[in-house]
Amino acid sequence: MRIRSVAGLLAGVAASAIGSVAFGADAPRMLGFSAPSAAAELALEARFDSGLSADALRERLKLMAAEPNQVGSPHDKANAEYTLAQFKAWGWDAHIETFSVLYPTPKAERLELLGASPFAATLTEPAVAGDDSSAHQAGGLPAYVAYAADGDVTAPLIYVNYGMPADYEALQRLGLDVKGKIVIARYGAGWRGLKPKLAQEHGAVACIIYSDPADDGYGAGDAYPAGAFRPERGLQRGSVQDLPVEPGDPLTPGYGSIPGAPRLAIADAKTILKIPVLPVSWGDAQHFLAALDGPVAPRSWRGSLPFTYHVGGAGAKARLMVESNWDQKTLYDVIAVMKGAREPDKWVVRGNHRDGWVFGAEDPLSGQIALMEEAKSIGALAKTGWRPARTLVYASWDGEEPGLLGSTEWAETHATELQSKAVVYLNTDGSNRGLLSVEASYSLRKLVDEAAGAVTDPETGGSVRDRALAEIQVRALAPEASAELKAQARIARDGGDLPVGDLGSGSDYTPFVQHLGVASINFGYEGEGQSGGVYHSAYDTYEHYARFGDPGFAYSVTLAKTAGRLVLRSANADLAPFQFGDLAATVAAQTEALKTLVGTSREHSTTINRLIDQKAFALTADPTKSSGSPDREVAAPPLDFAPLDAAIGRLKLSAQAYDSAAAAPVSTVKAERADSILQGAEQALIDSRGLPGRPWYRHMLYAPGMLTGYGAKTLPGIREAIESRRWAEAAEFIIRTAATLDALTEKLDSARAVLAS
Amino acid sequence: MRIRSVAGLLAGVAASAIGSVAFGADAPRMLGFSAPSAAAELALEARFDSGLSADALRERLKLMAAEPNQVGSPHDKANAEYTLAQFKAWGWDAHIETFSVLYPTPKAERLELLGASPFAATLTEPAVAGDDSSAHQAGGLPAYVAYAADGDVTAPLIYVNYGMPADYEALQRLGLDVKGKIVIARYGAGWRGLKPKLAQEHGAVACIIYSDPADDGYGAGDAYPAGAFRPERGLQRGSVQDLPVEPGDPLTPGYGSIPGAPRLAIADAKTILKIPVLPVSWGDAQHFLAALDGPVAPRSWRGSLPFTYHVGGAGAKARLMVESNWDQKTLYDVIAVMKGAREPDKWVVRGNHRDGWVFGAEDPLSGQIALMEEAKSIGALAKTGWRPARTLVYASWDGEEPGLLGSTEWAETHATELQSKAVVYLNTDGSNRGLLSVEASYSLRKLVDEAAGAVTDPETGGSVRDRALAEIQVRALAPEASAELKAQARIARDGGDLPVGDLGSGSDYTPFVQHLGVASINFGYEGEGQSGGVYHSAYDTYEHYARFGDPGFAYSVTLAKTAGRLVLRSANADLAPFQFGDLAATVAAQTEALKTLVGTSREHSTTINRLIDQKAFALTADPTKSSGSPDREVAAPPLDFAPLDAAIGRLKLSAQAYDSAAAAPVSTVKAERADSILQGAEQALIDSRGLPGRPWYRHMLYAPGMLTGYGAKTLPGIREAIESRRWAEAAEFIIRTAATLDALTEKLDSARAVLAS
Repeated sequence: MRIRSVAGLLAGVAASAIGSVAFGADAPRMLGFSAPSAAAELALEARFDSGLSADALRERLKLMAAEPNQVGSPHDKANAEYTLAQFKAWGWDAHIETFSVLYPTPKAERLELLGASPFAATLTEPAVAGDDSSAHQAGGLPAYVAYAADGDVTAPLIYVNYGMPADYEALQRLGLDVKGKIVIARYGAGWRGLKPKLAQEHGAVACIIYSDPADDGYGAGDAYPAGAFRPERGLQRGSVQDLPVEPGDPLTPGYGSIPGAPRLAIADAKTILKIPVLPVSWGDAQHFLAALDGPVAPRSWRGSLPFTYHVGGAGAKARLMVESNWDQKTLYDVIAVMKGAREPDKWVVRGNHRDGWVFGAEDPLSGQIALMEEAKSIGALAKTGWRPARTLVYASWDGEEPGLLGSTEWAETHATELQSKAVVYLNTDGSNRGLLSVEASYSLRKLVDEAAGAVTDPETGGSVRDRALAEIQVRALAPEASAELKAQARIARDGGDLPVGDLGSGSDYTPFVQHLGVASINFGYEGEGQSGGVYHSAYDTYEHYARFGDPGFAYSVTLAKTAGRLVLRSANADLAPFQFGDLAATVAAQTEALKTLVGTSREHSTTINRLIDQKAFALTADPTKSSGSPDREVAAPPLDFAPLDAAIGRLKLSAQAYDSAAAAPVSTVKAERADSILQGAEQALIDSRGLPGRPWYRHMLYAPGMLTGYGAKTLPGIREAIESRRWAEAAEFIIRTAATLDALTEKLDSARAVLAS
Repeated sequence: MRIRSVAGLLAGVAASAIGSVAFGADAPRMLGFSAPSAAAELALEARFDSGLSADALRERLKLMAAEPNQVGSPHDKANAEYTLAQFKAWGWDAHIETFSVLYPTPKAERLELLGASPFAATLTEPAVAGDDSSAHQAGGLPAYVAYAADGDVTAPLIYVNYGMPADYEALQRLGLDVKGKIVIARYGAGWRGLKPKLAQEHGAVACIIYSDPADDGYGAGDAYPAGAFRPERGLQRGSVQDLPVEPGDPLTPGYGSIPGAPRLAIADAKTILKIPVLPVSWGDAQHFLAALDGPVAPRSWRGSLPFTYHVGGAGAKARLMVESNWDQKTLYDVIAVMKGAREPDKWVVRGNHRDGWVFGAEDPLSGQIALMEEAKSIGALAKTGWRPARTLVYASWDGEEPGLLGSTEWAETHATELQSKAVVYLNTDGSNRGLLSVEASYSLRKLVDEAAGAVTDPETGGSVRDRALAEIQVRALAPEASAELKAQARIARDGGDLPVGDLGSGSDYTPFVQHLGVASINFGYEGEGQSGGVYHSAYDTYEHYARFGDPGFAYSVTLAKTAGRLVLRSANADLAPFQFGDLAATVAAQTEALKTLVGTSREHSTTINRLIDQKAFALTADPTKSSGSPDREVAAPPLDFAPLDAAIGRLKLSAQAYDSAAAAPVSTVKAERADSILQGAEQALIDSRGLPGRPWYRHMLYAPGMLTGYGAKTLPGIREAIESRRWAEAAEFIIRTAATLDALTEKLDSARAVLAS
């Protein structure tokens, strides 16, 4: 039944597909596969699917989420041992690889409002009716963020909204600053770690981060346990490591935390904050916020608490104290290998982390259980004598939450081997009910598109690809839809590949793609499950997930099916499933957008300067309120994009030529030779000098933004220089980015020559 | 001092002005005035300004807002008599004109939540500390809206957000309806009266309208008395008469409510609702909202109360009862005349209403006191022997709040005389600290631009014109700025006339411009004063206004200066200050926008139909939630705009020719002949058959929208037909609108011929 439906859908795709000349009109189209190989692959995937069980997924989640499982906890280690035993039982060649990393945990902490109505924050999450797990938090962490500083400060309190750069601009217009103060910021609108980092850069002495009910509490939906959203005392833990500079153990930057490795002094670590930070619930935060005076907070700063939000900065004082154990802790990465029969030295790496903040049912275990279910089913296939053509490497990472520790230390330790062997890295993390969401290297878009077209959505019976494309088009109907969404809707309408997001950071693909240049895909399901409100809290439990995350575990199965197709197609394709036309077109479009950005910036400067000359800001200011005029701007100088345009022109031609050559039938020998050239094609896009101020990040096409944290910046060397008005740097990165494209072009030309020979 | 600054500013304007050929390079440019006349006018305006006193304005407000002054109240009548006496003392020929109108007021009312946690709404506004007025509400009205029905209903309660058309669409997608239910809607996003009207049309049996703290309470700013915003028990009274159909006494549609006039039976009145309605505070409303169950309200429906908003519709029941006195009440319009010396049969009409909902300090008395201050200063000028060239008619309207009663009945009674004599109608209403805000007939844009350039903003020292233009340009810098705002910013940058808004409804200009075709301007100051939170409540008091509305009364003086310039220039210009180029250009731009609207509509239909065919809505729907697919649409047929395009082409040429001729020196005799032709030029834009379903509204360029209430629709006959997909009607109104433009063209050609003869 399932196979028929998949075949039907694929036939539908083939009918409208471009470049399907290598196959007969009725054969399914599958990138990298000949028609007979594709038929075999489809049969294999059907067998793979039959090995997946929702009940097994449910039982595995219940077991792994039974106790707090953060780094260093007994249950984290027990889960590693359980995972290892399972992999072995399923026939994999598995082992645990350990690393010793700096991981501070709180010994004592205190947050108090001083003054006329003093209040001491509870900093804990009480048990919730109907959630047995939440009553068993022994061994878990209290309110806590990883890699902030210790300290004990008493200072005036000031509210900074989301604590993002625009909020500091608004604060300046109000005539206020955070120097010497404790900032209180709400979660949302940008990565957690930027909030204390920007506070610190602006002179604050400590930072409180709270969850406003507008964002994920009663303002978003009924609070747990009535509904799925964050209850009064729910708080969000997390890392505040300076991730956009580099992830991993802060004491071993760029190399593995193995025995004997040199370690920095803590004071020299670049990615540890200098100020103390505590996360709190709105139940705690409301006392602090209600005590603030000073100007009324700007409209967009106000949340859902039942009073007028003020900025403060003068009257209300608070004390914030954190004292930590600055211990080394052991990470347990579980690594399982199934050797490839045809190309054993080409690796398909598949990972998901295993450590949570407390119980971690959704984040990360919902992804971890799917990864294990895939391994179980693949193991069963192997027991029938089947072997993948390329080698499979399955990884259950530890220490992702504090800073991608387990994946980064492993990737840094095995960098040389990975760069010479890894074809692709496939990542998942928390996942729930809803629509397929993907970020991917552009060379893998076609693979994603085809695999998504071959997975049936359990709710609607359409493919998850068709569902995602429908969603884009329906959302684009809204009058307020963004230009980007409307552009994606046109692509969807015109039968283009499923649009995928850009790889930023926030999960374990980062060391692979952005440091080593391994082409990567990060994917999951989301949008209908309601796990967001308990994110990183003690309420992200089995009970919550089974009620609100993915009732019935149908999407856990669907995630495993999706991952299985990506893994098996990557492993079994005659020719590794890369396609470069999408990449060239995407970079070309991004370059045009950057040119527009420069033009817009120049126009903006001209307008600002004219309005300053005309005293427009003084004329519009309300003299009873503080408000500043913007500074004059030096308009953007001409920026020469010609080197990049030329490189893109060459890349487009070579990509087209390679894609055409790859679509034609090819011998196994030639395919293997081409594979060897293209295995590390993404590494061409690495510049070994890295990005400004953060040499660990070396990919010239995507990086987490310095001021977005998780969110991607594409063509980051050029884009961030333009956004920060560093024009010489922008010009330099135009040339450096062009050079990486030329390096890719060269590889494509070599591979095409092999195929055409 | 003030004169010099004005002259300087005007010289600045003249330097960049177009069409100033009739004047010497140094003379101020003033539409309709020769250079010597302009100089005399400037001198007169300086004398006018010197007669204005902030202290007098303050004392007058204190006196007039001392007691509740709604229609039928003793203080409303006392204020009329006081106003009459003042006009007479200032040398005006004044009288009171009375009308007898239907004006129901509550005898008994009750609003109760039934069920497990019953609650009876207070429906009253308690006194507030520091506001003596609020402790003296005797004779005022309780929670009340005018022209709803009496009734006593018990029914399930359902929340409909703002109760606007889009909210009913969202409700339908949730699988819910309001049939047989009591709806609870929040104030905002559209005119009050539409909420019960749409509820009634959808089958509801009663309507509660409440003020959510997100919109004008603690979510907007500190609540009164700590700050200016609506307190827990503050409620908004108002009219729910079906104003977009017609204003005025519902029993005398289209003619004056004078003795002996025929009166409809109440049951036959078109503009009285059929269901009962009560407005409540959030203090009362929170009990009803918290009791609702059913689906969580869509995100944009949620306000600032501290719980999750649900739609309800099933569990919670309420009882709503209203019983009214359906009496005739007497309106007291005060009319004061100062006869023109040169053209006594050309009238410049200036009005502001006097009745409030309770004390009415800001609405309407802040405008009323300025109107009286103008009359005082003009009276002082007259005592020195000066006379206006045209006749001034000053009006203090009664009964605006329930439905523009005083102005409408007076305008209907004097329709013939007004159509033959009125040159312009100049309206104000509530006003406070901030920026000039204007809606105007397009032929008066140049007058507005010049007058605003001649008034100095008391806070910044710039002209109020320059301040408004600066505001537009600064606001347009925001990335989220609308295309319309950006277009206005370009006009501002390029030295165009001050953009003005379109005349919708909601104040007394409506009978003049939209029923009789008298060119009108509605204006005031706003944006920095904080009166909005107490709008139509018992807290709109002298105390509140003096603290938050316009501390120091500087903008009351500025309003009087602005009105004085508009009145005196309209009265004294050699040639009435019309300019038609702006009108032609505006209508041309609107017509292009309508063509785009048709194209967008057609494209939208095509997309919707394709997505329905592709099952996109079914694919994206969350099967655990109710959601509907939109209906298929019949795409817009071709719509022939040629008649309108042709008429606009002719109008543009004639307007340009007239404006040029008017800019050249002209004899008094010719000017008076041209004046007689153009006095009723705006009447050319009236179609005597009126708009569909509302023949009282006859203007083809602007009307209040049937689904916006106060908000204007331009080219309303065509636009509303397109928006409602009534294509034949759109085609008909293209022809009818074109015919009105041709009628205007003919008048312009006649006037130009006179000037050129």
